[in-house]
Amino acid sequence: MLNLFPLISGAIAIIFAILLAIYIIKKSPGNERMREISHAIQKGAVTFLNEEYKIISIFVLIVFFLLILASFYTDLPWQTSLAFLTGAFFSGLAGNIGMRIATKANARTAEAAKSGIKKALLIAFSSGAVMGLCVVGLGIIGISIFYLIFEETSILFGFGFGASSIALFARVGGGIYTKSADIGADLVGKVEEGIPEDDPRNPAVIADNVGDNVGDVAGMGADLFESYVDSIISAITLASIVAYAYASLYPLLIASLGIIASIIAMIFVRGKNPYTALRNGLFGAAIIFAIFAFITTHYLIKDYSPFYATLVGLIDGIIIGLATEYFTSEQRKPAQSIAKAAETGAATDILQGMSVGMLSTVIPIASTCIAMVLAFEFASFYGVALAAIGMLSTLGISLATDCYGPVADNAAGIAEMAGLGEEIRRTTEALDAVGNTTAAMGKGFAIGSAAITALALLFTFVNKAEKVIGEIKIELTQPHLLAGIFIGAMLPFLFSALTIGAVGKAAYKMVNEVRRQFKEYKILEGIGKPDYERCVKIATKGALKEMILPSSLAVIVPILIGIWKIEALIGLLAGATASGFLLAVFLANAGGAWDNAKKFIEAGHLGGKGSFAHKAAVVGDTVGDPCKDTAGPSLNILIKLMSIVSLVFLPLFAKFA
Amino acid sequence: MLNLFPLISGAIAIIFAILLAIYIIKKSPGNERMREISHAIQKGAVTFLNEEYKIISIFVLIVFFLLILASFYTDLPWQTSLAFLTGAFFSGLAGNIGMRIATKANARTAEAAKSGIKKALLIAFSSGAVMGLCVVGLGIIGISIFYLIFEETSILFGFGFGASSIALFARVGGGIYTKSADIGADLVGKVEEGIPEDDPRNPAVIADNVGDNVGDVAGMGADLFESYVDSIISAITLASIVAYAYASLYPLLIASLGIIASIIAMIFVRGKNPYTALRNGLFGAAIIFAIFAFITTHYLIKDYSPFYATLVGLIDGIIIGLATEYFTSEQRKPAQSIAKAAETGAATDILQGMSVGMLSTVIPIASTCIAMVLAFEFASFYGVALAAIGMLSTLGISLATDCYGPVADNAAGIAEMAGLGEEIRRTTEALDAVGNTTAAMGKGFAIGSAAITALALLFTFVNKAEKVIGEIKIELTQPHLLAGIFIGAMLPFLFSALTIGAVGKAAYKMVNEVRRQFKEYKILEGIGKPDYERCVKIATKGALKEMILPSSLAVIVPILIGIWKIEALIGLLAGATASGFLLAVFLANAGGAWDNAKKFIEAGHLGGKGSFAHKAAVVGDTVGDPCKDTAGPSLNILIKLMSIVSLVFLPLFAKFA
Repeated sequence: MLNLFPLISGAIAIIFAILLAIYIIKKSPGNERMREISHAIQKGAVTFLNEEYKIISIFVLIVFFLLILASFYTDLPWQTSLAFLTGAFFSGLAGNIGMRIATKANARTAEAAKSGIKKALLIAFSSGAVMGLCVVGLGIIGISIFYLIFEETSILFGFGFGASSIALFARVGGGIYTKSADIGADLVGKVEEGIPEDDPRNPAVIADNVGDNVGDVAGMGADLFESYVDSIISAITLASIVAYAYASLYPLLIASLGIIASIIAMIFVRGKNPYTALRNGLFGAAIIFAIFAFITTHYLIKDYSPFYATLVGLIDGIIIGLATEYFTSEQRKPAQSIAKAAETGAATDILQGMSVGMLSTVIPIASTCIAMVLAFEFASFYGVALAAIGMLSTLGISLATDCYGPVADNAAGIAEMAGLGEEIRRTTEALDAVGNTTAAMGKGFAIGSAAITALALLFTFVNKAEKVIGEIKIELTQPHLLAGIFIGAMLPFLFSALTIGAVGKAAYKMVNEVRRQFKEYKILEGIGKPDYERCVKIATKGALKEMILPSSLAVIVPILIGIWKIEALIGLLAGATASGFLLAVFLANAGGAWDNAKKFIEAGHLGGKGSFAHKAAVVGDTVGDPCKDTAGPSLNILIKLMSIVSLVFLPLFAKFA
Repeated sequence: MLNLFPLISGAIAIIFAILLAIYIIKKSPGNERMREISHAIQKGAVTFLNEEYKIISIFVLIVFFLLILASFYTDLPWQTSLAFLTGAFFSGLAGNIGMRIATKANARTAEAAKSGIKKALLIAFSSGAVMGLCVVGLGIIGISIFYLIFEETSILFGFGFGASSIALFARVGGGIYTKSADIGADLVGKVEEGIPEDDPRNPAVIADNVGDNVGDVAGMGADLFESYVDSIISAITLASIVAYAYASLYPLLIASLGIIASIIAMIFVRGKNPYTALRNGLFGAAIIFAIFAFITTHYLIKDYSPFYATLVGLIDGIIIGLATEYFTSEQRKPAQSIAKAAETGAATDILQGMSVGMLSTVIPIASTCIAMVLAFEFASFYGVALAAIGMLSTLGISLATDCYGPVADNAAGIAEMAGLGEEIRRTTEALDAVGNTTAAMGKGFAIGSAAITALALLFTFVNKAEKVIGEIKIELTQPHLLAGIFIGAMLPFLFSALTIGAVGKAAYKMVNEVRRQFKEYKILEGIGKPDYERCVKIATKGALKEMILPSSLAVIVPILIGIWKIEALIGLLAGATASGFLLAVFLANAGGAWDNAKKFIEAGHLGGKGSFAHKAAVVGDTVGDPCKDTAGPSLNILIKLMSIVSLVFLPLFAKFA
């Protein structure tokens, strides 16, 4: 019976998600103009996803056959390929459902805003909850099925690898898409032509709104799906090193408790203040989960160590979230110091943002190190994996608050484009402002969970590798290992160079297209109409083309290094995790702080909109965009993916060792 | 006799430096206006140094007494404190001499430019050579004396620590000084008032020129003095693990051969093309050194392994230099791609620069990893230390080409300020342009040598620690060690946040002062005169105040971590070296490339001076300034200093282990 609890809780999550989806779809999508815009965004998003899935399918099929091939020549179980396919499918499914609902919820949120912020919040949050529940539900169902049927942990790595593959493309491709559209729309529309954000005359405006969904909903969902399943898989694998009762079932059980806690806590998300509502939901879920987990541990294991390890991760996640909020919120000193620096120009604005971003790495790193050491003291490597699960336990609701952001953002855009009047716009913008804060916290949380998951995977890899190959010399002074650390630490820099460069290239095409349309169609003179679809196509094509190189790198490098020297690979994973964690926090928080420094000025401080400081802050914001939405989030995937690739291909490395 | 060879070659270097200094001083310093300007720069530089030395003296005295105290309660030899004092004094002496000569050579270079580029080159290079030869001469003499008298390697760490302390303050304080003056002068003078660079009406112009000397001459000299002595010390220490004849003398011998090779190769630095001349000198020295080292190894050791290890480091240094040149030169694609991105604005210029900077980390990291693995294969840890010496062997001449840059820069400034006419200005600017390239290469070289020296120190530390404490668990999966890697990797980010923030704060004061002078003294209206001295004082005060926090951090953190857990400290050093190396390369090369992208546009491309692209590129250049001249170089010191502090305080950690 206990065995089936994960499956049951997963099913409950899915049923809940379906009910919420029905609730959303039943709501009115507003007047014709609103439906039209919402439909354009939906169409653009689906177009991108379909095009993306074509490329992903090719990749997935190639890997699938390579895995089958590998199972003939190495000790890789043949079921790994099946698990890989399922993992990819489940991740894609969760992202697809989440994004379809999000693009349906935007107009409905704007419409509901007519009857007040309470109702609008409910719809926007519910659409986020669909995504959150699909991710945790499908995640736990997938793992449970493979684990219950085959009872072999190696096969589970295939499931994680499948999830990682989707996440890779969703984060990298989606990240490039969203920012090339955003920069294209802003540089020409806002800066050159001086028309407001979300002005329907801007040809790139639909692509920009599509981008919010593609990047922040589908990308974020796939990213956290990966963290979620990877952390559970590594805990199950490492269960063999401890002697607790139910050690290998425990990770699935506490994950299930987290799902139930998340669903219960969703009741708290209501009221007139969206920030308080979301916060109550998040903290409520954490507290309920902690109580559930304590009771379960007390009756089942009778040793509190694994519970403590889990708790440590949960607290680490909260600390990272709060630290992220401090360093990026426009109501705090860091972002305001950037705004102040903008008074002496764009250069000082950017330098201060870099300084803030770098400083913001201290708390997440220190907190995660302490969490790791404590979790290890409680339950060795297994404890570290449990800490990762603890951090992700309430993912059902925390992902809901993340995905709420882009829906609110789109709703504000639709209210603007459809000319819904001052009051409704104010309501949707109030929702959007909170969405920015939760999105920033969500980014910090995604990075933190990626880092601790990557650590758990690293321990899993060393543990497995020593079983397969025999003792490995992993002293720090082993030169191959040390070289691995250096090369690994370099990869996030290389990866970010490629993704930032990719946004630049794709945005360049978009800028030229928007300029061309303004000029040739005489849009601003009121003569021609903007061709939204062309911009959507250009962003789609650019993103898909530019994502190939960095994505391939993330898969190929660990395999090559692993074939060369297993010690070097172990170093590589550690170095990449450390440097990727740091760089991701730096890029995400600097980007968030630049963004909010601009918003701080726009709120009327330091001269307000149109002032010298504002112009400088806009430059900072534009620099920050690909940092926080493309390069930063892509690093989450890089560090996890390299670890899971290493785990899957371990039998191959064993041949060469 | 062989024992005395290092002392003799050191003495030769000093004698040569004195002769060159006399040669420079005998030259005419030009007309009254030139002497006046040169004198103002000299006075500003000396003022800064004197103020800086006051603070350093307090620091040095405190540490001196702490070391004496420690020698009573731990196993620290009492002579360490003496060596510490000497190291600090020698480093300060070299920097002081080098900078005094450099500030005398600037006007003389400008004057010599009247009789052509050949003579001007000779003076500017000679002044650099004074610095180069003082550094290697005093470095090798200091180590030799302590080693010959006490024959105890632990004492040598004190010498290295002394050198590191001066380097810390010179790099951090000097870096903050130079960039706050530069940004202050540029933002108000060039951007706001539209007067040219080096315009004598700009109140911050002298401070700006002082800054070039303070940062690029004194700072660079102290940085490389530290690398030089640290690499030799670690090789001597690690000699005990190999069985070659003369193993502990060999490092001193090859360093001596490098000095002789550098002096000989200085003959090649002449001709009408300064770039070719400097390059001939650098490569000539490398080849001569390789031949000398081969012959010596052949007759003395009869085993080529240590020679190969040395050679590997020499080649690594050359590769890093060339890669740096490629990624920063205005004649190459990377910098030009930034210039092109400037056509769509400052934000895209900055993003492209970040991308280029990140990409530029690949070759230096890969090359250094290969060098480390090879050197280790040849002669274990000892080989890695030899590789560091190999890279630094021709420091006498390579530092000369580095320090040539700021002299040429100052000469161009003096030619402009004294109104020396078109032709002379063109000559000095031609010298300056080459100086920019060599300065960029020099920065890459300084970073690379810092990284490989830090690696050698890390191996030395582990080696010594195991002798003192007994076996230490340094498996990568040891959680304290892994946490150490993460915290260590974070420190360069924290350090850079502080130094970049410091420049911002100091520059802010400078901007306000320059604005005030323009307004109150009515300088541009031709009524009042600028008050240079006030600007020099503000830059000095700002830099000295802001350097305290980051500097203290670099000393205190490793001591605290070492007292807590020796495993964590070992991880810390490795993590800091990897991340510091990467971040330093990224910051230095992004900064260099932004600078040269601007110069590329100023040379008449993409619209030339005053165009939209040029304005955008100026923003990029300003962002890059503190990256390449403050934060980046300071990281060199951080990674070496933390290692040497750990080595010195090892007896203290042993008490707590």
